[in-house]
Amino acid sequence: MNAITEKLLGLISDFTGSFKGAYNIREDGSCAGRQSSENIVITPKTDKPGIDIHVAPGTAEETVYIPACVTHSDVEDLVYNDFYIGEGADVTIVAGCGVHADGEEAATHNGIHSFMIGKGAKVRYLERHIGIGEGTGKRIINPVTEAHLGEDSYMEMDTTQIEGVDSTDRRTSATLAARAHLVIREKLMTHGSQAAATDFVVNLSGEDCSADVVSRSVAKGTSRQVFRSQLSGNTRCSGHSECDAIIMDRASVSAIPELTANHLDAALIHEAAIGKIAGEQLIKLMTLGLSEQEAERKIIEGFLK
Amino acid sequence: MNAITEKLLGLISDFTGSFKGAYNIREDGSCAGRQSSENIVITPKTDKPGIDIHVAPGTAEETVYIPACVTHSDVEDLVYNDFYIGEGADVTIVAGCGVHADGEEAATHNGIHSFMIGKGAKVRYLERHIGIGEGTGKRIINPVTEAHLGEDSYMEMDTTQIEGVDSTDRRTSATLAARAHLVIREKLMTHGSQAAATDFVVNLSGEDCSADVVSRSVAKGTSRQVFRSQLSGNTRCSGHSECDAIIMDRASVSAIPELTANHLDAALIHEAAIGKIAGEQLIKLMTLGLSEQEAERKIIEGFLK
Repeated sequence: MNAITEKLLGLISDFTGSFKGAYNIREDGSCAGRQSSENIVITPKTDKPGIDIHVAPGTAEETVYIPACVTHSDVEDLVYNDFYIGEGADVTIVAGCGVHADGEEAATHNGIHSFMIGKGAKVRYLERHIGIGEGTGKRIINPVTEAHLGEDSYMEMDTTQIEGVDSTDRRTSATLAARAHLVIREKLMTHGSQAAATDFVVNLSGEDCSADVVSRSVAKGTSRQVFRSQLSGNTRCSGHSECDAIIMDRASVSAIPELTANHLDAALIHEAAIGKIAGEQLIKLMTLGLSEQEAERKIIEGFLK
Repeated sequence: MNAITEKLLGLISDFTGSFKGAYNIREDGSCAGRQSSENIVITPKTDKPGIDIHVAPGTAEETVYIPACVTHSDVEDLVYNDFYIGEGADVTIVAGCGVHADGEEAATHNGIHSFMIGKGAKVRYLERHIGIGEGTGKRIINPVTEAHLGEDSYMEMDTTQIEGVDSTDRRTSATLAARAHLVIREKLMTHGSQAAATDFVVNLSGEDCSADVVSRSVAKGTSRQVFRSQLSGNTRCSGHSECDAIIMDRASVSAIPELTANHLDAALIHEAAIGKIAGEQLIKLMTLGLSEQEAERKIIEGFLK
């Protein structure tokens, strides 16, 4: 793999020269390294770009890394990654994505991920996105995630995009079977003239399933953010959606969380708040000796932690 | 006026044989009574159906009644009512609407209301909607309200639709100048196979203006409700939107409150909750001697009060 991939891997997946266990490193649309483990088997697709990841039933606390890097401008990467999580498996998936633009053309990654999560399985899905490089071309990351949560399964999706991505269109959909539980935590920061759109669609279709979707974002500069979520309660279930945003400078933020209860026993809640950093918070930190910029940084760090 | 109008007036505007002060009674598209007062002048439009209501500057605590009734099937009423509220006036507008279907055809009222609210004026706008009659035709009420709130003005819009309206499409939009304050309270109950759509669009465009939009609804039977609100904060302002719904039987409810902050000093919040009546509340009232039906009725009454 090239030096930029190595740098990006450090930023998106705590890479320190090697991965333990199963991994697949994607570099500019090709494979820069792949390893299966006893329980986690990675095979390339034959009909389209991407891989299938099979996690054996009963796998206990293993981690698989599937970072994807675009290392220069004028690359538009498209990949399909399909996860088949066996019954009762417990697995962490680290799926960072880094794009590096060095010229006038865009560097783009489109990652389409699907999850078939078996009965009683437990999945932690970590997605860290970053854009770097001195080029004027846009750094674009468009992730699509489609999850099918089997009975009694659990999925936690933790996504972070803090810096450097000029444009992102994030679409996540999930369908939950009986007693499945979905937790989504999104952290997003945009600056300059960046644009970010987020769209969550959650179908609460199995009895006693539940979902908890929380997005926290900071919009600086003249950046624009649109957050959408749709929770549909189709049976006895519970759903919670929350969107909190800090607005700075001349940025704009929209929050459009949609709840639909199609069943008497669906209990759905959402909350959203958009505002600037509270003056009192700033003053408090400044009386402790921080400059205004340092105080702002501290508050944002705490908000996105 | 006919007997059905008289009955409807009692239901929608506490009519007891006469109105005090200014009023205009609309019956099946015609005028069934009109009176101006010294400060409130009502004149029929010449270019389209409807009236202009001019409230003189400085008018103190007067009330004007403008009920509209559709008394039989196969009427599709359309009316434009424009309000010009003078500077510093303080006025209450009672604008109920009742539709009575006695045959197979629909009885429909489309009321389009616009408000030009002068500097420092105070308006309370009460809108009570009801459908009655033994006919199989639909009872339809589609109100459109467009309000322009001048500097330092105050508008409170209190709308209630509790019973008998088969289909309603309610659209309200407001634009607020500096230091204007808008309060909206909506109460809605649907039953049978009724459908209700509500749409609020509020532009917070003047410095230090504010809006507080609260909708409470109960959906019974197989009825469907869709609540939408859009608050746009375009300057230093604050906005709050809330939608709480009780779902019963096989009804469905969607809540789609949209917040957009286009300015650093816009502070926007929304909340929504959809769920059934809490079991503990029912049990508590039943231990006090109420039947399950009585307990439900009591809880709904309290919720919509």
